[in-house]
Amino acid sequence: MTERIKFNPLNPQPMMIVISGLPGVGKDSVVKRMMQREPSFHFVVTVNTRAPRPGEVNGVDYIFVSEQEYFRMKEQGELLESARVYNEYKGVPRKQVEAALTSGKDVFLRLDVQGAGKIKQLNPEALLIFLTTQSEDEMVRRLEKRQTESGENLKDRIAIARSELKRVDEFDFVVVNHEGRLEEAVDDVLSIIRSEHLRVHPRRVSK
Amino acid sequence: MTERIKFNPLNPQPMMIVISGLPGVGKDSVVKRMMQREPSFHFVVTVNTRAPRPGEVNGVDYIFVSEQEYFRMKEQGELLESARVYNEYKGVPRKQVEAALTSGKDVFLRLDVQGAGKIKQLNPEALLIFLTTQSEDEMVRRLEKRQTESGENLKDRIAIARSELKRVDEFDFVVVNHEGRLEEAVDDVLSIIRSEHLRVHPRRVSK
Repeated sequence: MTERIKFNPLNPQPMMIVISGLPGVGKDSVVKRMMQREPSFHFVVTVNTRAPRPGEVNGVDYIFVSEQEYFRMKEQGELLESARVYNEYKGVPRKQVEAALTSGKDVFLRLDVQGAGKIKQLNPEALLIFLTTQSEDEMVRRLEKRQTESGENLKDRIAIARSELKRVDEFDFVVVNHEGRLEEAVDDVLSIIRSEHLRVHPRRVSK
Repeated sequence: MTERIKFNPLNPQPMMIVISGLPGVGKDSVVKRMMQREPSFHFVVTVNTRAPRPGEVNGVDYIFVSEQEYFRMKEQGELLESARVYNEYKGVPRKQVEAALTSGKDVFLRLDVQGAGKIKQLNPEALLIFLTTQSEDEMVRRLEKRQTESGENLKDRIAIARSELKRVDEFDFVVVNHEGRLEEAVDDVLSIIRSEHLRVHPRRVSK
């Protein structure tokens, strides 16, 4: 009689949560705000060869490494997943993910669409959230704005974003990050995580 | 280019949400508080032959009818679902559900476990939430407390509650209603609904 009810959601299994989505949609802002509101998540800091943007802290936002160091890590099997995106190299440190999964906390990764797809192949139970703008117009507008700042090739960016948009089918949930409504997007993501911990049946693997 | 992104969760399909669970667990309090916090749901008021409890309003909490009226409704096919629970007769007015589903709002039903199971058979896409105590001990304690108030047969109640506990497998989500922590249970339910509207793929039917 003293046994706990077996489906008790007070002891949920930790989840691996991947937040991904269109380039320029605000993944970094959403994740940053999430970690402020729910510091109990274990955020996996990924490796990146690009230069830090203003305000970004090495080891907190990304681990900023040289290309040389990146390729050393890759060759020695230290990256669970790695990809070239535009002219940058990105990777997920294997050790960090392993440590995170044994911590009992929810593990949180911020990855581009191809990285998210690879993580789902490695771990079909990962929860994949796709962050998007409200419309394609809005997506293009944000990429244009970003191009002005960075000088990246706009046409390539748009083409890649369009092809990534088609991969939303591989995701479990989709969240719109409306301009100026960051808290709403964060609320959406937190609701998804809270809800997924209350499932009776394990999440079915997306097709 | 002006087309909306097709999976846009701004125009979600309305859902049929059934909140159910153990007797005495606080379904009524949770639903009442939910409707205060989210009045946009369309709550389906069910028919009941028992006497109103203090504070209950006819037509708002339940439609209180005589047994004679209940059987008339049942015979004339006005009840989508009907059941005898202990010594009470309960039913879901068909017209109300039909009106609710055409309103474009999320439709919300509060039903006992057998009623929830029948609704799932009628509409496999219904979202079923099981409200529970934290442990079996706590469930028994609450039933004992209620028995003192109502004089119902405690042994029967406990036996029925135990058998209902086994049916949690037919549900999609489980929410613990801790004593004195009503807002938390309501937050859980609202998170589930918010999250389910953000799915990329339709909910799979539970086994």
